[in-house]
Amino acid sequence: MKDIELDPRLVEDPYPFQRHLGFYMVDWREDYARMELPMAEFLTNRYGILHGGVYALMCDSVMGYCGCYTGDPETRKFGMTLSLTTNFIGRLEGKTLIAEGWKVGGGRRNYFCEAKVTDELGTLGATASGSFRYRS
Amino acid sequence: MKDIELDPRLVEDPYPFQRHLGFYMVDWREDYARMELPMAEFLTNRYGILHGGVYALMCDSVMGYCGCYTGDPETRKFGMTLSLTTNFIGRLEGKTLIAEGWKVGGGRRNYFCEAKVTDELGTLGATASGSFRYRS
Amino acid sequence: MKDIELDPRLVEDPYPFQRHLGFYMVDWREDYARMELPMAEFLTNRYGILHGGVYALMCDSVMGYCGCYTGDPETRKFGMTLSLTTNFIGRLEGKTLIAEGWKVGGGRRNYFCEAKVTDELGTLGATASGSFRYRS
Amino acid sequence: MKDIELDPRLVEDPYPFQRHLGFYMVDWREDYARMELPMAEFLTNRYGILHGGVYALMCDSVMGYCGCYTGDPETRKFGMTLSLTTNFIGRLEGKTLIAEGWKVGGGRRNYFCEAKVTDELGTLGATASGSFRYRS
Repeated sequence: MKDIELDPRLVEDPYPFQRHLGFYMVDWREDYARMELPMAEFLTNRYGILHGGVYALMCDSVMGYCGCYTGDPETRKFGMTLSLTTNFIGRLEGKTLIAEGWKVGGGRRNYFCEAKVTDELGTLGATASGSFRYRS
Repeated sequence: MKDIELDPRLVEDPYPFQRHLGFYMVDWREDYARMELPMAEFLTNRYGILHGGVYALMCDSVMGYCGCYTGDPETRKFGMTLSLTTNFIGRLEGKTLIAEGWKVGGGRRNYFCEAKVTDELGTLGATASGSFRYRS
Repeated sequence: MKDIELDPRLVEDPYPFQRHLGFYMVDWREDYARMELPMAEFLTNRYGILHGGVYALMCDSVMGYCGCYTGDPETRKFGMTLSLTTNFIGRLEGKTLIAEGWKVGGGRRNYFCEAKVTDELGTLGATASGSFRYRS
Repeated sequence: MKDIELDPRLVEDPYPFQRHLGFYMVDWREDYARMELPMAEFLTNRYGILHGGVYALMCDSVMGYCGCYTGDPETRKFGMTLSLTTNFIGRLEGKTLIAEGWKVGGGRRNYFCEAKVTDELGTLGATASGSFRYRS
């Protein structure tokens, strides 16, 4: 993915939940974030397919980040999810889950994002939207 | 919790995502399910607190089950989440996350549930609602 | 409904959208609001039944109010909806649509509510949840 | 709007709720629908601005239609909303509210849509998503 130039200084160390599930930041810029998660057997549910919560947590993760980009590792911005809606649209059968989030609006106190989850085959697995607030 | 009598024949083996995160069924009956998750450091986010996705995935799990109770281990019913909304209300500081789901309506093809996440201290962490469909 | 004692000084004049559709406040107290709407032909959709938007707008209305009760007509509090989710559960066939909203959490800047829509026959038509912010 | 060619045979008579509020179909094609609503004083709330429910009902309307296009007035398809989430992003100050809906996925029984509400000035007022089922 040569077209992605994620400033390495902006990449934070993966937090514990990232490490436990295996997802990581791939792109982060003004109003946009992308994270990826290698498919693994431990992510599956009662039916042997990806647990619905995996879509939701990946959407929550990229949406939280996409409204908090500053471009400066010394100046960090923090957001908290207020409300998150995930729609479960298709079944992903690729090897990598790709979650992308976009900030679509907001002001000084709150922001709004949308997200989608696909795989490297281009299948749409889920869409999401959320409202967030900045931590003061 | 002596007041809970979950028929052991109904308890399915934990599926992979359950084992990986540590949540398990505590109660399951007509239109109701309860699962619990011991708090652990690997569930935390960028801020050192429970990742929002954990609330969402626990709500999704109990809501999926609560519409599929049959009381008969030989007759299993299956549901798929169509849409899931989670509201992030409070911060849990207890040792056990408790997710409860209720079926509130539906018919032969679709059903609707609500859920809440608390801890053993009684704090309300999140509420959720979802629409589901039965797998044929 | 003798058990409802809504202080008449708290009842605001119906705003234009209320007048146009016919809904009115029936009860309003700390963390709770109830509004009613007489069923009318002009509320129906392509299928001759209540338009889904009617459920959503009634839920939005009671949830907005229930977080803004002060008990003092001189001190008014104002809220704005950030995100609203409505689940369409059943078809109402009564003569009066009843919307009730409850505040379930929040702090100084944001609040969270739930709502349900029934009719005088007790049928559940819809449930809803929302995140809100106080206007400063 | 010369670029829109809505087959007049496909335009259904406005249903009662449309007539009462004044919104009408502007475009309808495979997986897409657009409706418009002239701003009017009777659409306003307690704060003298557009009632939040207006955004929600317009989103619900276009999303319902966009999954039911057949291109043949003799063959009609019908959908019912299961779950609708609306995010309230900005305040519209134009003269016409424009709601657009897109079907983003689904199968034989259920479908998923997204919508946005803007005005003729290009301001984004709301986004929405929903899950729907086809009426059999």
